[in-house]
Amino acid sequence: MNIKNNTRKKIGVAIVGGTGYGAGEILRILSYHNEVSVVSAVSASNAGALISDYHSHLSGFYDGRFTSDVDFTELNKYEHKVIFLSLPHGASSTELLKLMPVIERENIKVIDLSGDFRLTHQTTHEQHYSSSPFLPDLRSRFVYGLTETNRKAIRDARFIANPGCLATACILCAAPVLASGFTDERDNRPKIERSLIFDAKTGTSGAGRSVQQITHHPHRASNFNAYKVLCHRHEPEIVQGLSMVADHSVNTFFVPHLLPVSRGIFVTMYVTLDSDLTASALEETYRHFYRDSSFVRMRENSPILSDIVGTNFVDISLVSRGRQVVVMGALDNLVKGMAGQAIQNMNIMCSLSETTGLLAPSLGPG
Amino acid sequence: MNIKNNTRKKIGVAIVGGTGYGAGEILRILSYHNEVSVVSAVSASNAGALISDYHSHLSGFYDGRFTSDVDFTELNKYEHKVIFLSLPHGASSTELLKLMPVIERENIKVIDLSGDFRLTHQTTHEQHYSSSPFLPDLRSRFVYGLTETNRKAIRDARFIANPGCLATACILCAAPVLASGFTDERDNRPKIERSLIFDAKTGTSGAGRSVQQITHHPHRASNFNAYKVLCHRHEPEIVQGLSMVADHSVNTFFVPHLLPVSRGIFVTMYVTLDSDLTASALEETYRHFYRDSSFVRMRENSPILSDIVGTNFVDISLVSRGRQVVVMGALDNLVKGMAGQAIQNMNIMCSLSETTGLLAPSLGPG
Amino acid sequence: MNIKNNTRKKIGVAIVGGTGYGAGEILRILSYHNEVSVVSAVSASNAGALISDYHSHLSGFYDGRFTSDVDFTELNKYEHKVIFLSLPHGASSTELLKLMPVIERENIKVIDLSGDFRLTHQTTHEQHYSSSPFLPDLRSRFVYGLTETNRKAIRDARFIANPGCLATACILCAAPVLASGFTDERDNRPKIERSLIFDAKTGTSGAGRSVQQITHHPHRASNFNAYKVLCHRHEPEIVQGLSMVADHSVNTFFVPHLLPVSRGIFVTMYVTLDSDLTASALEETYRHFYRDSSFVRMRENSPILSDIVGTNFVDISLVSRGRQVVVMGALDNLVKGMAGQAIQNMNIMCSLSETTGLLAPSLGPG
Amino acid sequence: MNIKNNTRKKIGVAIVGGTGYGAGEILRILSYHNEVSVVSAVSASNAGALISDYHSHLSGFYDGRFTSDVDFTELNKYEHKVIFLSLPHGASSTELLKLMPVIERENIKVIDLSGDFRLTHQTTHEQHYSSSPFLPDLRSRFVYGLTETNRKAIRDARFIANPGCLATACILCAAPVLASGFTDERDNRPKIERSLIFDAKTGTSGAGRSVQQITHHPHRASNFNAYKVLCHRHEPEIVQGLSMVADHSVNTFFVPHLLPVSRGIFVTMYVTLDSDLTASALEETYRHFYRDSSFVRMRENSPILSDIVGTNFVDISLVSRGRQVVVMGALDNLVKGMAGQAIQNMNIMCSLSETTGLLAPSLGPG
Repeated sequence: MNIKNNTRKKIGVAIVGGTGYGAGEILRILSYHNEVSVVSAVSASNAGALISDYHSHLSGFYDGRFTSDVDFTELNKYEHKVIFLSLPHGASSTELLKLMPVIERENIKVIDLSGDFRLTHQTTHEQHYSSSPFLPDLRSRFVYGLTETNRKAIRDARFIANPGCLATACILCAAPVLASGFTDERDNRPKIERSLIFDAKTGTSGAGRSVQQITHHPHRASNFNAYKVLCHRHEPEIVQGLSMVADHSVNTFFVPHLLPVSRGIFVTMYVTLDSDLTASALEETYRHFYRDSSFVRMRENSPILSDIVGTNFVDISLVSRGRQVVVMGALDNLVKGMAGQAIQNMNIMCSLSETTGLLAPSLGPG
Repeated sequence: MNIKNNTRKKIGVAIVGGTGYGAGEILRILSYHNEVSVVSAVSASNAGALISDYHSHLSGFYDGRFTSDVDFTELNKYEHKVIFLSLPHGASSTELLKLMPVIERENIKVIDLSGDFRLTHQTTHEQHYSSSPFLPDLRSRFVYGLTETNRKAIRDARFIANPGCLATACILCAAPVLASGFTDERDNRPKIERSLIFDAKTGTSGAGRSVQQITHHPHRASNFNAYKVLCHRHEPEIVQGLSMVADHSVNTFFVPHLLPVSRGIFVTMYVTLDSDLTASALEETYRHFYRDSSFVRMRENSPILSDIVGTNFVDISLVSRGRQVVVMGALDNLVKGMAGQAIQNMNIMCSLSETTGLLAPSLGPG
Repeated sequence: MNIKNNTRKKIGVAIVGGTGYGAGEILRILSYHNEVSVVSAVSASNAGALISDYHSHLSGFYDGRFTSDVDFTELNKYEHKVIFLSLPHGASSTELLKLMPVIERENIKVIDLSGDFRLTHQTTHEQHYSSSPFLPDLRSRFVYGLTETNRKAIRDARFIANPGCLATACILCAAPVLASGFTDERDNRPKIERSLIFDAKTGTSGAGRSVQQITHHPHRASNFNAYKVLCHRHEPEIVQGLSMVADHSVNTFFVPHLLPVSRGIFVTMYVTLDSDLTASALEETYRHFYRDSSFVRMRENSPILSDIVGTNFVDISLVSRGRQVVVMGALDNLVKGMAGQAIQNMNIMCSLSETTGLLAPSLGPG
Repeated sequence: MNIKNNTRKKIGVAIVGGTGYGAGEILRILSYHNEVSVVSAVSASNAGALISDYHSHLSGFYDGRFTSDVDFTELNKYEHKVIFLSLPHGASSTELLKLMPVIERENIKVIDLSGDFRLTHQTTHEQHYSSSPFLPDLRSRFVYGLTETNRKAIRDARFIANPGCLATACILCAAPVLASGFTDERDNRPKIERSLIFDAKTGTSGAGRSVQQITHHPHRASNFNAYKVLCHRHEPEIVQGLSMVADHSVNTFFVPHLLPVSRGIFVTMYVTLDSDLTASALEETYRHFYRDSSFVRMRENSPILSDIVGTNFVDISLVSRGRQVVVMGALDNLVKGMAGQAIQNMNIMCSLSETTGLLAPSLGPG
């Protein structure tokens, strides 16, 4: 298969699980990534179909067809070889086990968009991903791909567990305030008093391409409700992700809600510090924590979905009142929450600038 | 099962096919219809489930359960007995054949919301409803239930084929201009020159409760496209419906489009007359044609969905320029286009005022 | 002016400030309230205009015109006389002062939809409603019109300060858990440990008919953001409203967000109790607290806007995990959050059943 | 002011009227156009404000401020100098007259996004743009900037009247069938029988940033209606634009409707040919007409907004039945209907490839 501009690139990419929204988004972003050639888009169940039959917006950008297997001969021609697994939870680890011999032999990098390798604690994993075996040995080779908090480990990784979209948003809102004990803000370092409360709102594309009643348009069009209240699988991922930036455990409330929009996540985080902290000191903590993170934009006003939809940005803002702090963060669940972060990780693993192919503003109105 | 206010009513109603949007809408409207008691809500596949499990907005209004059969003993206690068939095309005629013996014996009235008995021409029917047998004898007993054009026949009917939602909107836009040759506007009577063009836009609830890609929220949320261009099954229904009000045949274009809203149909009809007609003469033609039709409101400006959503109204307005005429009509596909019109027909068949239980304004904003 | 059905009613109503959304909603609901006749719809700036020019969905229901003054001669013919003030903050108290002599003389009841008389503490009032004078004497005659928590005082009131929409939702979510110390649940009574966190999401109609950038459709269509974070004027109203049901003060976080829907408020409240409480004990506390409140529906699953839009219902559900409790509530900001609650209060003040004219299900899909 | 990547470029650009949606869209697209440096963003009324205060999605891409005047010293450093006028109708010609001396002296190219110089017939212009003087001499230097039908004249133009968004969509739908008499399809060349009917549906961003009732979110959120029926100023522009590709005049119906989406135009065109034409012959006519037009994509199924939002593409498809033809076209009103087409014209005027900086797929879902 061809991508439009087929001059020789540095990175060869295969996508396994090509008909879903995640794969469509990887293809979309890579259509203007100058260092990548997409070698194969694999769909076991739809091999032979045109890519544009499933991703009609990519018509003219990808004129090829889904294949039943990765074309390793072609993939091997590239300096860096990357496979994105964009399969349902459970199916991903099954596919990976099948591909492992060639992945090992050819030194291929793997970025898994499913939840199969995110959680490191076996009981928690099995509770939340019952269809996915724990596979401790393979799992131990995976690095958690939240770029902003784990950049160094990602650089040397061969296997990336790409974070969940809601988890990405929540961890990025909370990490600086939790980590601040380790910054140079020693004297007035914020310590949180009790729970971190994450009230998350997400667009419907997070549920993927599979149709279901809760994303049936007549039902969802102007609607709003919470779901999986205090029992969503991203909550243990948040707790685990935060434990990587702070040495004390946290108590959380996590409630996701479904917005009547296609794309976008907005998280409102509530925390009470154990002493007053000026808003500007708090903001400085965040700016410092994200000083090397091009995709985190500290904003003066509330983040707003229209500033981040279609982009890899995470917009964050803070409001405080005495010891009360509200942190708000917004990102696109299919980009920074999924395909964009996966490509950001690929860039790092392939020694490119982290932002390659990922810097473009959102549409604004619309 | 009980409806909240269970004082003895004049009309007993059973609904067969109770989990769909059509049934939900019949139940909703009947919840404040003072002359009706809902005796049974039948769902073969979901018997035993709470009605409010499928129609959560009716919680507190219907606390009963779906049953596997109509409770004829209870139904027989009422002066008027009405069965609404709210089943998929094909399933409706199958169910009706099964129920015919008791329907005949107990003198029950039947209002069928499917398309099974709408078309009177066998070839056309079979082309558009391949899963539905033609059944000429049973069909001959059905009356086409477009109230405003067929009120007299409905009054004496036992079996009503309730019109399609898009067909209702188009026929009501076109009928007066076609019928005007028979009004007292003789001298400047409009004759159409050529085609009637119907550009229809509909909300997604018209597709029913069954999930599918075109009504998957992430895809539909801010989208718009045409579908079944020049091949929708409502086009022959429009032609047939118009032949009932005018003695000359018409040439039509019919293109439906899918709006990113849940409810509402808007039709823009284009026609060129064979001579100039003042806008006021034309409007007078419409006012005259609908002089007895409480649910048709002639509007000065373009109809707008927010004026008709949730109501049984059809709002119509006209603009002309020389011989060019644009007629616009709007209605709620689930009310006037479906359940509301069915209840309007029931009222007429049971000698009630046509508007009983159907007069309420829309919400306006929202 | 006439309302369609003009048989003599028990209650005469005048609405002052007739072109706004609040007035439109009062008119809409009263169009099917059997005991009310609308005598005057006053709009100083649009006197003479058709009511349906501003509320086109009411065409056919109200064919009269806005007047510059209340027709007191007509109003006096009714047993109960009620004036709804539906004016901007500040304008309402100014208008009321002007009308006071006749209101006193004719024993007219007043329900004020603005925020002018909600807050009882002068400094707080002046901080949040700078354009509105405190007027302590007049204010002392006002009763806070949150029906479910203040029904008894409303029964005897002459002047009602109708609650804010967001405040209504938040107070109704929190009141039972705060008040539970006074219920018969003594032994395992929940005490909250620290803050009550209210994460509120509201539709755009709450901002009223006046156009502004944040409710400009191209900007808002698929958008989401927080606003007035920790500084919204409904927060002191929530605190005050809760102080009326519990004798201890509360610490709150209140963050409103703007949903891309026209109608509906959804509140997610987070609270940590000081000891475990079973979910069922907690739910029983709520059911008991609202045992006389027809409009509060306890739901098993998350409330959802489509169940309450267009209705006066408040749907509430609870989830707990150990000492962590999440309470979710949903209502229509223009109905239970505004005009519906105002009419509910009117019913009580006029010795009618509280639900008169207010019981109808929502549309469900759409 | 600076654009992020400030290496020396070939083209210097100034935008006059910088706070509107058109200007925001020009800035957005130019942020990844490799040959352009934005020298000035002028806003007379908001000089000194941050660009990102009005276009918050461009934060990090444009960190400069609006100025009160074009920085001609800076502009003159570039090989090509281009001014985009993005002002209201009337204001644009006034501003242009003021700038003409320096524009002439410095050989600056001008692309006007307003309607001030689109219509060439004085009476028609004055009827539709009453606030804009006809200015025949200046007007005669303007070239109509519909790239696909006027590419050759654009190449040599100094002054471009950038087409209206709805006019662009309608002309591109109709041009091939009208022009086909001049193609090599001689023997079965389609001639249209009578009227061309354009039923257009547009997103709300076409109305610009200024707030008004018809784009007030609570009113527009799930709404739909027609507006300016048979009296929209784009109708004479369509007729004029089509007269440039065919030597016979056409009779049109043009009715625009307002969709509850922010971006996107969908046109359904109805035409009856004077003899049958196979669908494939017709499609061949279109493919041939647009053989050099990279932004026109002929699609098998109905165009759909999600394939074109945010892009410069025009998706077109055709359905025929005997002599009846339906042509459907979709584009983004702010891109191909405005800023994208303006930049496409700039590329041609500056001897770049027409597609420079304009090739990216839409987001698909969302």
